[in-house]
Amino acid sequence: MNVFLIGVGLIGGSFAKDLRTQYPDANFFGISRREATLDKAVELGIIDHKATMEDLSKADVVILSIPVDVSVPVLVDVLDRISDNCLVFDAGSIKEPICEAVKSHTNRKNFLACHPIAGTEFSGPEAALEGLYKDKTMIICEVEATAFKLQEKAVELFRAIGMRIRYMNAKSHDKHIAYVSHLSHISSFMLGKTVIEKEKNENDIFDMAGSGFESTVRLAKSSPAMWTPIFAENKSNVIEALEEYISNLTAFKKLMEDDAYEAVFNEMEQTNKIKEILNGIPHNN
Amino acid sequence: MNVFLIGVGLIGGSFAKDLRTQYPDANFFGISRREATLDKAVELGIIDHKATMEDLSKADVVILSIPVDVSVPVLVDVLDRISDNCLVFDAGSIKEPICEAVKSHTNRKNFLACHPIAGTEFSGPEAALEGLYKDKTMIICEVEATAFKLQEKAVELFRAIGMRIRYMNAKSHDKHIAYVSHLSHISSFMLGKTVIEKEKNENDIFDMAGSGFESTVRLAKSSPAMWTPIFAENKSNVIEALEEYISNLTAFKKLMEDDAYEAVFNEMEQTNKIKEILNGIPHNN
Repeated sequence: MNVFLIGVGLIGGSFAKDLRTQYPDANFFGISRREATLDKAVELGIIDHKATMEDLSKADVVILSIPVDVSVPVLVDVLDRISDNCLVFDAGSIKEPICEAVKSHTNRKNFLACHPIAGTEFSGPEAALEGLYKDKTMIICEVEATAFKLQEKAVELFRAIGMRIRYMNAKSHDKHIAYVSHLSHISSFMLGKTVIEKEKNENDIFDMAGSGFESTVRLAKSSPAMWTPIFAENKSNVIEALEEYISNLTAFKKLMEDDAYEAVFNEMEQTNKIKEILNGIPHNN
Repeated sequence: MNVFLIGVGLIGGSFAKDLRTQYPDANFFGISRREATLDKAVELGIIDHKATMEDLSKADVVILSIPVDVSVPVLVDVLDRISDNCLVFDAGSIKEPICEAVKSHTNRKNFLACHPIAGTEFSGPEAALEGLYKDKTMIICEVEATAFKLQEKAVELFRAIGMRIRYMNAKSHDKHIAYVSHLSHISSFMLGKTVIEKEKNENDIFDMAGSGFESTVRLAKSSPAMWTPIFAENKSNVIEALEEYISNLTAFKKLMEDDAYEAVFNEMEQTNKIKEILNGIPHNN
């Protein structure tokens, strides 16, 4: 089996590490805009060979894990080049634009639109982790547009590395993910910004920061190169989520201004049920 | 050494666990409004004996770790009852109101105003952890109001359990802690609320939540009984921090509405420096 990674960073690199364990005979090829990144991926044992788009005709599986703004043109190019039985899947955080862009492509049936709910705040080949996908959810969108045999092949690969599968339509995916992922990133970035701004003239402030603050701003370490195109492509859903968040914060502030502390208590108590929800989320570390 | 815990939960209980290791001859006494909590603390080996306020005359050390709204009246009562060489310290998340309330008390010199930067989102005796305070910061406020010998005794205890000491004035403490702790809690609670509200009619949404979401809403599991009085007593600082946070979120939304994605990128990139800041924060787990 020839597996081609387009993008050899955290997401693609982690797929390679786990697939290699399950399919020891597979060959892994890497394609990247940056030669240095490919060299790093070879050095780390993520890929066996550096490759180019011209080599894609010999691919059995293509894993597309590059920022979402470049995914669409690259995917079209990939679909133009592959052989009949090749499976191509992506790992992007938004699904409607990519499904829309290739819906009339002759080889649409070779593509499976995927979003693994897994990752860390780090990026690049060095960030690739063994076991990243174990017990994690793989969301598959518009599965009916993919050839039956290739659906089956994909599910076999995902199950082999320990993932559970969920099917959704692309529009719902993009709407919900704005709440449970994209909004968390913005809340974290803006919390980091608010505190850093305050800190400018107050050097001691971070001696006062504990693990609670760290947890809440962890996502503010994430890559702007990855997240800017996600926000751009999911603009209306993200803005809607952000408006609801700002409105809840403003209402909380109003309760405090009015000394309505019984209501403040109730707001928090009702939100405590997040405990049960979080119990269902698998950990990386 | 007779150590009295007023409040035998996460904070007081964790002090007892670590102090017991360092001072095996010490006796630990517990005082709580709820008998069942004291029984639990005995069962867990946090305290040796249940006690009442009447027993405080035999205390060498009193650790006050109860919600901040009840700390002030209880502290006054404690200072009325203790012997001359007794050290009393609290662990509250705001320091100006408690310092203000006892500033003219005859036994003010027996009290040290403290805030350990340590904790988890859990509460009660079961939440007490060995090693919670190791490598954590203990902030001491208005140290000059405490008797020299008792300052020394406190620092010895804190160092024995692995803490580093920082001295601040109470007013600065309350202002800065609003940013690095209180605001994180509100951002997390309101993020949880926003997502739960959306989920009402959308049962699938939490299958899409990953470890990033979990990290960002972790603090929304915190105790409303503990946090409501903190917000009430630090009202003006918390409202100021919340206003700056809302204003940063609103500005970010505006950039997205204007398709100003270069600016969106820059906002995030500038906030990435939180990485270096977070490297200085010690972990519990």
